[in-house]
Amino acid sequence: MSTSAAFQRARRPEQKQQREDAILGAARELALRDGVRNVSLNDIAARIGIHKSALLRYFETREQIFLELTAASWRDWAQALHADLDGAAAGSAAAATGSATTTGSATTTGSAATGSATTGSATATGSAATGSATTGSATTGSAELVADVVARSFADRPLLCDLIPHTALNLERNVSPAAVRRYKLTSLGAVGDAADLVHRVLPELTEGECREFISAMASLAGALWQIANPPPVLAELYATDPDLGHACVDLLPRLRRTAAVLLAGLIPSRP
Amino acid sequence: MSTSAAFQRARRPEQKQQREDAILGAARELALRDGVRNVSLNDIAARIGIHKSALLRYFETREQIFLELTAASWRDWAQALHADLDGAAAGSAAAATGSATTTGSATTTGSAATGSATTGSATATGSAATGSATTGSATTGSAELVADVVARSFADRPLLCDLIPHTALNLERNVSPAAVRRYKLTSLGAVGDAADLVHRVLPELTEGECREFISAMASLAGALWQIANPPPVLAELYATDPDLGHACVDLLPRLRRTAAVLLAGLIPSRP
Repeated sequence: MSTSAAFQRARRPEQKQQREDAILGAARELALRDGVRNVSLNDIAARIGIHKSALLRYFETREQIFLELTAASWRDWAQALHADLDGAAAGSAAAATGSATTTGSATTTGSAATGSATTGSATATGSAATGSATTGSATTGSAELVADVVARSFADRPLLCDLIPHTALNLERNVSPAAVRRYKLTSLGAVGDAADLVHRVLPELTEGECREFISAMASLAGALWQIANPPPVLAELYATDPDLGHACVDLLPRLRRTAAVLLAGLIPSRP
Repeated sequence: MSTSAAFQRARRPEQKQQREDAILGAARELALRDGVRNVSLNDIAARIGIHKSALLRYFETREQIFLELTAASWRDWAQALHADLDGAAAGSAAAATGSATTTGSATTTGSAATGSATTGSATATGSAATGSATTGSATTGSAELVADVVARSFADRPLLCDLIPHTALNLERNVSPAAVRRYKLTSLGAVGDAADLVHRVLPELTEGECREFISAMASLAGALWQIANPPPVLAELYATDPDLGHACVDLLPRLRRTAAVLLAGLIPSRP
């Protein structure tokens, strides 16, 4: 960790970068330990051993520090989705171009209701039992994979989940237009990248639907993470009060289930 | 509006109630005008013309005031859903018990997809084509009605939407165990009531699925409302920057669409 002495001599660009990194690192550690809402500018400054005013040479406000952390978290998140979904997309493309299976892309996205039988695979036997498989992406292995990967991408990132509701509520409201614009382009870019990845695995969905899916998952991850990580008083009530026990949220299974529901519903609910 | 003089003589229970109502009314007005995040205890006290310390004779903290407002908003919301969905439920029950009509209430908007006929009546022929119609509620007029009513129930209530993300993030964290418990029972009760209403209109969904649906919609309404109501700097960017224009959210259509997707996906994604 940088010392205050080191902070007094940031003249070269790489030194400036080092200091910004140290500030962001301190903010990240404190946010993970105490929750974003509890970390002040003074806390961050104290963690690095400098005065608040020195810190404000590198960032506009407390909110800009956390907005930069959120942007970095979005980039990391999109990168991880690449790693987890690129393979699946390759498999999906192979299935579409060659094999006899019906899944792929060009294949008959069919109509919202009837044609969805096509997505599945060779199993479109059409009995009442397989009927529900017909909703296509919903119940295919690819959709299950996407639901699981996307749910984990959030559940494995507590800092991102904690930051998400803070962005619209607080962080975007106390920074310069340039800073909020830069942040928005990063977060929208990450969501767009993720939507493209999902689209490659589930080509029967439109790009717009994939974006709808990712956007809804991001909002839900932010909201549900807060409920899944209650303050001590509420955690105690959840643990001891039979009237409230069912209200606590288990984040990963809840996100995975909602992802599956959304993916299953996109095609049959087309206008 | 009460005067400070009136506040000095609250001895009888009905007087106490009057003062609490005046405090809640002031908090509501200010929150609707300035946003929940911008309203302090001092603002509320100044609005009624009393000192902050007098206000704290009636409420524990700023957060308790807003938690009480949130509870009241949930009760009002559930009541409105009753008014809007009871008729539909009655229609749905009539269809199930006897009539020849295919879908729920008289509304049968015709449906996005073909198979909606299946819900609720005798047409379950079970062919491959109607198979996907087993997704049932998704594509029926009743589901469209529920999606519309639930989306409006939030979009028409800016204060509730604004309050929702604040509850887990802030409000539940700065009140007594008794206050947070009372709030939780109210909000869970309202969500449970709403889920029951949806279940009566869409009996093909389980009660648990209806609760999943309502809970997800509440979280999304809270998150999306913040995005749909950006601070001035961001609103300006949305209006003028071609790279960002698509990022602004139009609350009601977005909520309605997500509601339709969720309802359509619940059955086909069953584990």
